[in-house]
Amino acid sequence: MTNIQRAACVGAGVIGAGWVARYIRNGIDVAVYDPHPEAERTCRDVLATAEASLDRLMGGPPPSRGRVTFTATLSEAVGDADIVQESAPETESIKREILAEIDRHAPAATPIGSSTSGLLPSRLQADMARPERFLVTHPFNPVYLLPLVELCAGERTDPHVVERAQSVYDAIGMRPLVVRKEIDGFVADRLLEALWREALWLVHDDVATVAEVDDAVRYAAGLRWALMGSFQAYRIAGGEAGMRHFMAQFGPALQWPWTKLMDVPELTDAFVDKIAEQSDAQAAGRRIRELERERDAGLIAMLHALRDEDLAAGSVLRRHEARLAAPQRVRADLDAPAPLRLLDARVPAAAVDYNGHMTESHYVKLFGDAGDALFAALGLDDTALAAGESFFTAESHIMHLKQVALGEQLEVTTQILAADDKRIHAFHRMHRQADEAVVATAEQMYLHVDTERERVAPAGGTIRANMARLADAHGALAVPETAGRAVGRR
Amino acid sequence: MTNIQRAACVGAGVIGAGWVARYIRNGIDVAVYDPHPEAERTCRDVLATAEASLDRLMGGPPPSRGRVTFTATLSEAVGDADIVQESAPETESIKREILAEIDRHAPAATPIGSSTSGLLPSRLQADMARPERFLVTHPFNPVYLLPLVELCAGERTDPHVVERAQSVYDAIGMRPLVVRKEIDGFVADRLLEALWREALWLVHDDVATVAEVDDAVRYAAGLRWALMGSFQAYRIAGGEAGMRHFMAQFGPALQWPWTKLMDVPELTDAFVDKIAEQSDAQAAGRRIRELERERDAGLIAMLHALRDEDLAAGSVLRRHEARLAAPQRVRADLDAPAPLRLLDARVPAAAVDYNGHMTESHYVKLFGDAGDALFAALGLDDTALAAGESFFTAESHIMHLKQVALGEQLEVTTQILAADDKRIHAFHRMHRQADEAVVATAEQMYLHVDTERERVAPAGGTIRANMARLADAHGALAVPETAGRAVGRR
Repeated sequence: MTNIQRAACVGAGVIGAGWVARYIRNGIDVAVYDPHPEAERTCRDVLATAEASLDRLMGGPPPSRGRVTFTATLSEAVGDADIVQESAPETESIKREILAEIDRHAPAATPIGSSTSGLLPSRLQADMARPERFLVTHPFNPVYLLPLVELCAGERTDPHVVERAQSVYDAIGMRPLVVRKEIDGFVADRLLEALWREALWLVHDDVATVAEVDDAVRYAAGLRWALMGSFQAYRIAGGEAGMRHFMAQFGPALQWPWTKLMDVPELTDAFVDKIAEQSDAQAAGRRIRELERERDAGLIAMLHALRDEDLAAGSVLRRHEARLAAPQRVRADLDAPAPLRLLDARVPAAAVDYNGHMTESHYVKLFGDAGDALFAALGLDDTALAAGESFFTAESHIMHLKQVALGEQLEVTTQILAADDKRIHAFHRMHRQADEAVVATAEQMYLHVDTERERVAPAGGTIRANMARLADAHGALAVPETAGRAVGRR
Repeated sequence: MTNIQRAACVGAGVIGAGWVARYIRNGIDVAVYDPHPEAERTCRDVLATAEASLDRLMGGPPPSRGRVTFTATLSEAVGDADIVQESAPETESIKREILAEIDRHAPAATPIGSSTSGLLPSRLQADMARPERFLVTHPFNPVYLLPLVELCAGERTDPHVVERAQSVYDAIGMRPLVVRKEIDGFVADRLLEALWREALWLVHDDVATVAEVDDAVRYAAGLRWALMGSFQAYRIAGGEAGMRHFMAQFGPALQWPWTKLMDVPELTDAFVDKIAEQSDAQAAGRRIRELERERDAGLIAMLHALRDEDLAAGSVLRRHEARLAAPQRVRADLDAPAPLRLLDARVPAAAVDYNGHMTESHYVKLFGDAGDALFAALGLDDTALAAGESFFTAESHIMHLKQVALGEQLEVTTQILAADDKRIHAFHRMHRQADEAVVATAEQMYLHVDTERERVAPAGGTIRANMARLADAHGALAVPETAGRAVGRR
């Protein structure tokens, strides 16, 4: 995906551990350094939650997973890193000291990113010998699910390092946003902070409780914010007359006393007590782990929904999934007298029903994926697709022989019963790896189509030759017992 | 649902029309008054969008829909209303005049709610003879999808009117939030306004463009805000140590210069031009109707996802659906000699491949959904499921006859070919509504199973009797030409 092979994470709290999860799930090894005596244990706790969430998000474990190593010293962690993520406490002096040490030990060309929420990069890079490879790389909790990462260069940052960082984060499924000017809080945290200050005033002045303020967000504007920011939302509110009209109409309200602009509430003991007590009431006894699981379940469900609609953060996920799927194509031997083994898959959470069994449509999805793998093996590549060649499934006969459960490993083998210049008659068997049982079969008739003229047409030379080759090799195989069956006829 | 039978909407812009959609979809008649000469046309435009979105949100049109009447005078609209929604322009003098007129003509006990985003109820009720039945009822755009409605009483509002309004909004699927103190902007708009002012500064100061500010929201915090507000998010960030710890750790940042608290940017012509131009670039030529459709598609997908997880706004929808479903279960006529019409569906983006055609697995998903609807019609309800009754698809024969594209409306009809005490042999046809073409067929054999013993078993009394009844009624129908076919045999 990217030429990054080893990342180093310095600081392994919630944010640092989130980075670790992102990297290893993209096949990148990570060395972790955190001097806290409990760091490895707490990091592994976060990783366990993150990996379970990513299994659900991505439909199972990745084909290759990076390794995590905990090192005893900072220099060991960063010594051969291709990128370093610093996620130390949010105190400028501490970060400056750690960043200078990372700079001394990391390879000269390795970008060093700080997870700071709002400290200025020009100040953070001040003590580094090679400040040009430093930038702010500000992620959001949970780092393994939320795609945004803000990139902010300091005065001495090399613009090429920013470009390099963009390509790395893009490759690990994130959405890098380059901040145009160095500013405290960058973009996102300025917005969060403005809302947070107002939220504190509302609780301080007893206009609403902690839970009511949160409800005012999540039952309305929050849903829109998952899709679009205020500008796009207000553009729509303005109607066809556009943004200029909206600004003319609602601009005056900006001068109305609708926020407590002037000040921030003083965090007296009494005020902090009030917030803490109301927050306890809101949590209603649920511990942080439960709240995290609930948060992740909600985020995953929304990311899947947005992926399916190809909108907002779902588009980032969709593109990343497509890229991850691309390199896994199987090389098939077209001359062997044995069914092709074209597909390996694990049953994801999205594919099971309320009884915990794989849904009918997922059987067909896997048979469809096996069909696509067959076409690819026959030579249906991007060039052939661009030339208008494709296959269409005209007819299928599916037999469900055994139920399949969440997490089971399956494979699909494919036998060609017959082929001519425009048809392939195939028989797929879905096997469960654990007991080698055949759990379902699909007999399918594929028609070769000319996608430009939208009609059935003979396949091009290479594909046609491969179809004949494969049909010939499989001619030696016994015809499956249930081939040629109609529904309900024994 | 509620004893409200007639609502009146005074003002039928985007907000007023959104109210109309909410009410009629809950079986409540609405009288609409808006003096603008184009009001009826624009209101009907919004209603068309809203109804299409609600069909998708709720899985089809409601069993009973209220009627909409446009009246020539305000007094006609409100004269026999059980509740009145005022959605006039956001100008205090205009609203006061209209509210006083509504007050003169509406029945004495009818609550009158204003959709104002932030004007004070004590001032709005000042000219009313019966101010006690007035309150602010502030909804969010799109009113027909977002559940929040803020209720704010004025000095002279009767607390019983607030309670009455809560029960009405709850009954039409909303989430009423009673604001504890009268304050400009109530709760939600104060938060929105704080974020909006900061967003304007970021664009004003060239830290980010309009699109970048929006991206900073929707790729990270926005996703969280759809689930939870800042307090809950920060509680989780604080870890097991709780909110007090979080406040101690991050409280000091409140004093850092992370927002432009002191002022609001002046809306000079140059600044408004900048925003308008950047907003045009962000919209990339998409018109408001397209942006609205995209917004609604995203909101519906997220609401469905959150409903399935029973979280945030999805919990409101889930509860409302459950309430609506109780009296509305689609009663299939098991004795009619005609295929059952069990499923309506629209092809979502998730279900099309790179050629823009519906995927094989989605055909099967829709046939599976039709199967589930069939089982429900036969009496497979929660009680039967809990008792271990279920059906299993043993075998299917699918014929793909025509390709189907994104957004097309489909319906599935189901004919029973045969049934005995443990088997149903069914034949589904998928029709495209636009041209009534049959786009695919599925012949399927379902086996009744005992889920506890995990084996095929005779159906229970009610279901078995219904199976026989249906098979008997369908015995009069002609057997479909392609029933009993095997793959590749013509």
